[in-house]
Amino acid sequence: MQEARLEFSKYWEPSRLIEKVSLREASGRILAEDVKSKIDLPPFDRSIYDGYAVKAEDTFGAEEDDPVTLQLKGKILAGQKPDIGIDSNECVEISTGAPMPDSADAVVMVEDTSIDDGKVKVRSAVSLKENVSEKGSELQKGDNVATAGTELSPQVYGSLLACGIEYVKVYRKPQVGIISIGEELVDVGSELELGEIYDVNGPTLTKAVEDCGCLSFYQGILHDDIEEMEKEIENSLADFDVVITSGGTSAGSSDFLPEVLENLGDPGIIVHGLAQKPGKPTVMAIVKNKPIFGLPGYPVSALMVFYQVVAPYLREMSGKPALERKMVEARLPRKITSEAGRKELVPVSLSEEDGNKIATSLRRGSGAITSLSKSDGYFVVPLNIEIIDSDEIVDVELFGWVLL
Amino acid sequence: MQEARLEFSKYWEPSRLIEKVSLREASGRILAEDVKSKIDLPPFDRSIYDGYAVKAEDTFGAEEDDPVTLQLKGKILAGQKPDIGIDSNECVEISTGAPMPDSADAVVMVEDTSIDDGKVKVRSAVSLKENVSEKGSELQKGDNVATAGTELSPQVYGSLLACGIEYVKVYRKPQVGIISIGEELVDVGSELELGEIYDVNGPTLTKAVEDCGCLSFYQGILHDDIEEMEKEIENSLADFDVVITSGGTSAGSSDFLPEVLENLGDPGIIVHGLAQKPGKPTVMAIVKNKPIFGLPGYPVSALMVFYQVVAPYLREMSGKPALERKMVEARLPRKITSEAGRKELVPVSLSEEDGNKIATSLRRGSGAITSLSKSDGYFVVPLNIEIIDSDEIVDVELFGWVLL
Repeated sequence: MQEARLEFSKYWEPSRLIEKVSLREASGRILAEDVKSKIDLPPFDRSIYDGYAVKAEDTFGAEEDDPVTLQLKGKILAGQKPDIGIDSNECVEISTGAPMPDSADAVVMVEDTSIDDGKVKVRSAVSLKENVSEKGSELQKGDNVATAGTELSPQVYGSLLACGIEYVKVYRKPQVGIISIGEELVDVGSELELGEIYDVNGPTLTKAVEDCGCLSFYQGILHDDIEEMEKEIENSLADFDVVITSGGTSAGSSDFLPEVLENLGDPGIIVHGLAQKPGKPTVMAIVKNKPIFGLPGYPVSALMVFYQVVAPYLREMSGKPALERKMVEARLPRKITSEAGRKELVPVSLSEEDGNKIATSLRRGSGAITSLSKSDGYFVVPLNIEIIDSDEIVDVELFGWVLL
Repeated sequence: MQEARLEFSKYWEPSRLIEKVSLREASGRILAEDVKSKIDLPPFDRSIYDGYAVKAEDTFGAEEDDPVTLQLKGKILAGQKPDIGIDSNECVEISTGAPMPDSADAVVMVEDTSIDDGKVKVRSAVSLKENVSEKGSELQKGDNVATAGTELSPQVYGSLLACGIEYVKVYRKPQVGIISIGEELVDVGSELELGEIYDVNGPTLTKAVEDCGCLSFYQGILHDDIEEMEKEIENSLADFDVVITSGGTSAGSSDFLPEVLENLGDPGIIVHGLAQKPGKPTVMAIVKNKPIFGLPGYPVSALMVFYQVVAPYLREMSGKPALERKMVEARLPRKITSEAGRKELVPVSLSEEDGNKIATSLRRGSGAITSLSKSDGYFVVPLNIEIIDSDEIVDVELFGWVLL
C-alpha cells in the first residue's frame, strides 16, 4: 500500500479547488479561507440583563438596607432605538439585549431594585460597564471568525451568520464518475436472467464517495466490449475529476480494463495489484492527468480497497479531515489460515459474548452480499504469518469511522 | 431534567410514522421493517474463480506430476447463459461469476491447469462443489436481509440492492417548525440598524434538527406582537409535528411566549424552567397534542438545551439511534464559581497543553457568538457545589457526538 501510494504520487497528487457559495447552502462544507467579521459584535452597547440602565457612579454605596433612589426616565426594549438619555440620578428601564441609552454606563439587574411611584430603588452598587456587553467587545469588524479548513457545523454556521457573512469560499466538491464493469451485471429493477446478478458496487460506491465529501455520478454498467469501454472511460475522464471502476481487472479471459487504460494515454497504469489480499486485481492509473482507480468486482473487497486506497485521496481533495481510525480488540472464534508472502485484510463481523468481542471472519467463501451487510471492520494478517490460532486476540479496525 | 421529562411524558410520548420510499432515495434512512430477499443469492450456481468446470470425480487422483486430461467442450463467460453440458472426462472453460454448465459440479482453478491442443491437463483434484457458489447458498428468497431499526449505510444499501429490493418502508422524517422570537432580531442580509442583531438561533437550530434525522422548516422571526405570535404558532402547530422556538421565554417585560402558549389550548405549558443553568427560561408545552419547545434566546444556551432536551425526542421520532456520549477529562485553568442550589452546565472550549486537555469556560460574559463557534462541550457543576478550584479535573461531555 505505502509503495503503491508512493509510486502513484510521482504522477499525481490530490489538489483542491475553491468555489464561492451562499452561506445558507454551505452547511457541512469545508471553509477554504479564513472568514472575517463584517460587523462589530455586539454591533452596539447592549444590556446583558433585564434591569435599569444607570450611571454607575450614582449607585456607589447602594446596599440592601440603604438603597439609592433614581428617577425613571422611560423604557427601552430589545430592538428599539434608544431615544432617551439620562442625567445624574436618572435611569431607564431596559430589557435584555436592548441598546444602552446615551450617558448610561452600567445596568442594575431588576432583581436588585424595586419601583415605587416613578422612582427606582437600587439595592446593590454596579461598577462601570457592569452588565453591559460593549460594542465590538466580542469581535471587531475584520477580526477572524473561522479559519480555513473548518467544517461548517451548526455552531460555526451560526457564528458566521451572526457576523453578517452571506457568501463563503469553500472547497469545491470533487466530481467522481463511477462505472461498474461485468457482463453478468444488470440494474436493480430488471428481471434476472440465468447468469445475471444485480450490480451492487455501483450504487454502494456512489454512497461511499458522497460520504467523503464528493459528488458522485454513477455511469451505469459496462459490459465486456473493449470499444464501448474505451469510449465510456474517455468520456468520464473528460467529465469528472476522478473515475472509479469496479470489476473487469482480474486476469480472466474477458477482463480488458487494463488494456483499455493502456490505450487511453500516458502514463496509464501506475500500480497493478496491491501487495495484499484483497487488492490483487486493483489498478491505479493516470490518464490525461486524472486518476482512475480500478477496484475488485467482489463487493466486500471493492469496499475495503475503496476505504483503504481511494477514500483518503477523495477526502484530501474535498478538504474533509482525515478520519480517526477506531480499533477494537476481539477474539477469533476459529483458526485463520492465510497465504504466506502476502499481507491479508480479513473482513469480520463483530459480536459479543460474556462482554468480550468476537470477530467472525467473512471471507470469500461466506457469501458476497451477506458479508457486505454484516462487515463491521477488518484485521490484518501480516506478510509472513500463515496461521492465527482460535482464541487469539486481534486488533479490528472498524469500518464505522468511514461511514459516519 | 429527569423530572421535566417525566412530567412531560404524562402528556406526550414521541412516536414514529412509517413511509414507503424508493430504495435509491433511502440511503441514510432507518428501516421500519425487516426486509426479506426477493431472490435466491446467488441466483444460480456460479464459479468463484476463473478456471474449468468439471465433474469432480473425474479429477480424483490428479496431482502436480500426474495430471488428469479432460476434453475441452467450450467456454462460458460471466453473464452468458450456459448452452453447453458436459459428460465424463469433459470440461468447459469458465470465468469468475459465470453460471455452471449442466452436469458440472466443481471448478478447477486456472492456476492448477495447462492447456494443449484442445485438451486440459488438471494438476490438482477438486471435491464436489469446490469453487462453486451454489444457488441460494447465501440467502434464499424470503430470508431476512436487514432488520427494522437498521440505518441504510452504503453496505446495507448495497445488500438490499443485490437482493432485488426496489422499495423499503422507513421511518418518516419528523417535520419540525422553527421560530425565532425577538424584537431585536433581523435576517442576515439586511442592514443592521442600531439595536438590531442578526438571528443566529433560527438557522443554527435548522441544521441541528436535520442532524437528528428530521426535516426542518425555518419559519423566520417573530417580533413581540402577541396576536401575530399566536397566529404563527397556531399555523406551525397545524403544519408540523414539533415546534421549536428560541427567545421570548424569560421574564422580561416584552416576553409573552408563555402567555401565548397558555392561550392556545390545553394542557399548554407543562414545564417552565429547568432546575439547571442554562435552562431557566426553557418552556415545554403541549398544544393540540403536539409538543412545543421554547428555548433560551442566548445562542450557546439554546444549543445546549436543544441537545440535552429536544434532540433525544427528535432522534426517537426519526428512529435514529441515540448517540453515544463522549466524555473527556480536562483541567480547569481558572476557578469556577456557580450559584448554590442550581445545577450548572458550563460550556467550555478544549485545548491541549503538554499533552493534557484544558477546559476553558465560555460563560455568558465571554461573548455569545465566539462562544458558540468555540464550544466543544460542557461539564456539570452539581447542585450544591459553589466553587471548583483551578487545576481541578472535570469530565467534559463533548458536543461532537451530536454534531456528526
